[in-house]
Amino acid sequence: MKESIDRRDFIRMGALAGAGTVLAQMTGCNSLTPGGPKNVRTMMGVGSQPKDLIKVGYVGIGHQGSSHVRNLLKIEGCQLAAVCDIRPERTDWASKETVKAGQPEPKVYTGDDYAFIRMCQEEDLDLVYNAAPWRWHAPICLAAMKNGKHAASEVNIALSVDECWELVETSEKTAKHCILMENCCYDPTEMLVMNMIRKGLFGEIMYGECGYLHDLRALKLSPDFYQGMWRLMQSVKRNGNLYPTHGIGPMAWCMDINRGDALDTIVSMSTKSLGLNEYAKEHYPESEWVNTKFALGDVNICLIKTKKGKVIICKHDTNLPRPYSRDFVVQGTKGLMHKYPIQQIHIEGLSPAHNWEDLSKYQEEFEHPVWKSLKEKAQGATHGGMDYVEDYRLIQALRQGIAPDIDVYDSVIWSVIIPLSEESVRLGGKPVKFPDFTRGAWQQPRELGIVTHLY
Amino acid sequence: MKESIDRRDFIRMGALAGAGTVLAQMTGCNSLTPGGPKNVRTMMGVGSQPKDLIKVGYVGIGHQGSSHVRNLLKIEGCQLAAVCDIRPERTDWASKETVKAGQPEPKVYTGDDYAFIRMCQEEDLDLVYNAAPWRWHAPICLAAMKNGKHAASEVNIALSVDECWELVETSEKTAKHCILMENCCYDPTEMLVMNMIRKGLFGEIMYGECGYLHDLRALKLSPDFYQGMWRLMQSVKRNGNLYPTHGIGPMAWCMDINRGDALDTIVSMSTKSLGLNEYAKEHYPESEWVNTKFALGDVNICLIKTKKGKVIICKHDTNLPRPYSRDFVVQGTKGLMHKYPIQQIHIEGLSPAHNWEDLSKYQEEFEHPVWKSLKEKAQGATHGGMDYVEDYRLIQALRQGIAPDIDVYDSVIWSVIIPLSEESVRLGGKPVKFPDFTRGAWQQPRELGIVTHLY
Repeated sequence: MKESIDRRDFIRMGALAGAGTVLAQMTGCNSLTPGGPKNVRTMMGVGSQPKDLIKVGYVGIGHQGSSHVRNLLKIEGCQLAAVCDIRPERTDWASKETVKAGQPEPKVYTGDDYAFIRMCQEEDLDLVYNAAPWRWHAPICLAAMKNGKHAASEVNIALSVDECWELVETSEKTAKHCILMENCCYDPTEMLVMNMIRKGLFGEIMYGECGYLHDLRALKLSPDFYQGMWRLMQSVKRNGNLYPTHGIGPMAWCMDINRGDALDTIVSMSTKSLGLNEYAKEHYPESEWVNTKFALGDVNICLIKTKKGKVIICKHDTNLPRPYSRDFVVQGTKGLMHKYPIQQIHIEGLSPAHNWEDLSKYQEEFEHPVWKSLKEKAQGATHGGMDYVEDYRLIQALRQGIAPDIDVYDSVIWSVIIPLSEESVRLGGKPVKFPDFTRGAWQQPRELGIVTHLY
Repeated sequence: MKESIDRRDFIRMGALAGAGTVLAQMTGCNSLTPGGPKNVRTMMGVGSQPKDLIKVGYVGIGHQGSSHVRNLLKIEGCQLAAVCDIRPERTDWASKETVKAGQPEPKVYTGDDYAFIRMCQEEDLDLVYNAAPWRWHAPICLAAMKNGKHAASEVNIALSVDECWELVETSEKTAKHCILMENCCYDPTEMLVMNMIRKGLFGEIMYGECGYLHDLRALKLSPDFYQGMWRLMQSVKRNGNLYPTHGIGPMAWCMDINRGDALDTIVSMSTKSLGLNEYAKEHYPESEWVNTKFALGDVNICLIKTKKGKVIICKHDTNLPRPYSRDFVVQGTKGLMHKYPIQQIHIEGLSPAHNWEDLSKYQEEFEHPVWKSLKEKAQGATHGGMDYVEDYRLIQALRQGIAPDIDVYDSVIWSVIIPLSEESVRLGGKPVKFPDFTRGAWQQPRELGIVTHLY
């Protein structure tokens, strides 16, 4: 696989170089990636034209989409100008909410799977943001960028290596942002820890654990929770880590991934699959799911090595009974913390030797300034307010014309764990190389936007 | 590697077949392994001649060895008949303890590295039990068995694949037991969980985490804690999971390894190595250890797949500041538990949905009967009493002439993680196959001695 990616990479880079340079000159962006190949445009650290009002088209207004719609309607400088869902009752709902919020009635796109393309073509929008089923994330982002709009997507942003490359190339070619909306990056605990790391408390970061461990049996097998049972269908066909970004997103922020280090190699193993059949047997005994052969192993574990010698475990566990967890652990040469089942920390010289302390002890001194300033506004928003913070940060970055916190390279390197883990599982745990979507630019240390831009 | 092992296996099996059959007839043992190849003697489930008094020769009377000497002197039917250590002050100490306990003065072997061989040759002993530095474990066990004594060893029992095969073949050839003394198998929590699994509370076991996470920097770098700094020397030369058995031992008991399932494939990754240098810089700034290039990555992670589709994470983390942990997690189709940082459990139908309960809630009903009956005797013994329980179980098994809880196949399959993880690390995370030391006999479901024999 590595070989074919390199070849593809090489061909496309050549094809894009000319257009990239022209576009870079037009928008005043840097066309050279520091440490990367010449004549390839980068979207790293690239801003956009500042703009007071950001017009958003929202696609996919189900459970998580509705939360974002509610957030966006509360954020200053944001107009929900168009809404799109195949279900007219969902666009109706969003229209009414928009009008209730004192905004003009949004343009409605509905009725078929490709309504989003018409929206991208016809509407004057700054941003197309989607929370559609997974298979539509990349196609919607591509349609947005190709029609001159920035793209933002609920997790994951892509399901295949080819989709990842296409997102990168399209973002670079069009100079439009392509942003994975990873809310767990904005969790107050993960941000606290990231802040403590920046202050040097953990020493040099060496190791991390993360993941998504959530008993989704009832939701996956519910006939109507995920429209058309799309999420269950993924468990029928795919065996790997299908939902890595809640774990790897915040971990990448803690580990300077794409900012001085890079994900290098992944191996992955899955258990056999029993959980969904057993649940179906008990709750839907007449359904086809009792005897369906699900591809997805009940627990999948990925082991990832970075180019600078860090190791990460990333877990996926959605088919068995269990309390929710993301098993977040970060360890450096001076200390470590875990978030589950309780938040504890050990820092050499501060904590009693060989003992844990409550992480809350460090809360006041090291709370991330962004969270501190936004927590009042975020109150009552979904997922403890972090969904609001991520939406707020996105809209304000676009208003100010600065680079968003999460760029296209972050978005794809986190999401590509899905197809790479599937490949490793298929190959009996063989190591698979991560593509270098940055073409060497990961080597350049760079600070996160959430550290340098405290809006 | 697989190929060479198979070849070696094949040749040795042929060479041993005759002797094995003769010995089997002599001792009345079964010479056919159920499910395994014909004409190969097995030590699975094999007992020995009952004997009221077990005469022990103890080798390596350092920190852990001294604890075992104290335990053995309290156990009925056990005589410490010989003691061996290269340091005469340690054999002196053991002699005095033995006499104080009302036993005859033991024969003393000391003065050079090979004193244990003379002891094995000259003394009339039932068991040679050692807590010497790692590199001596297999040689001492081999010397014991070749001289007609059972062998028991502190963890790990071997450091290479060849040593593992030699232990298996020698045990089979001599009909002597070769037993890894894995105290964590006898930890009351691990035994409670193993008991709950046997009662069906966890459903079918799918996944586990385990390991050894212990900040050993001060001990490894102390000039005299590990005699001749032998443990630090292992960190200089080896990169892998150097101490897997505290994790994989109890996990194997929970997962029926060698008793219906088998460890099949391992992949392993290590972080870079910084912890020992940093500690030396602070505490031994003039020493060579400040700039020594240690092979051992500070954190090593192994990912193991079993033949029946279970997945296990086994961690090794001894060079960074941290509280002690073994990160013990067991998960099945009906529930899961973790031991660290607090003991919690979730069992579907018993625990509140999506929530943890204290494991202690299940303590009274499911406490393992062996622990229940021995905990008073074990009080005050090292490592919370589990060292006493393991020593007691060993001596009583030999007295009764029944198979010990841990046989040679368990001992080597747990220990072989060391060389296999080193090989996988060296190969950039490539999967490495476990040798099948049982030659197919793992397929036969068998109950653990600790379940069937409640002495």
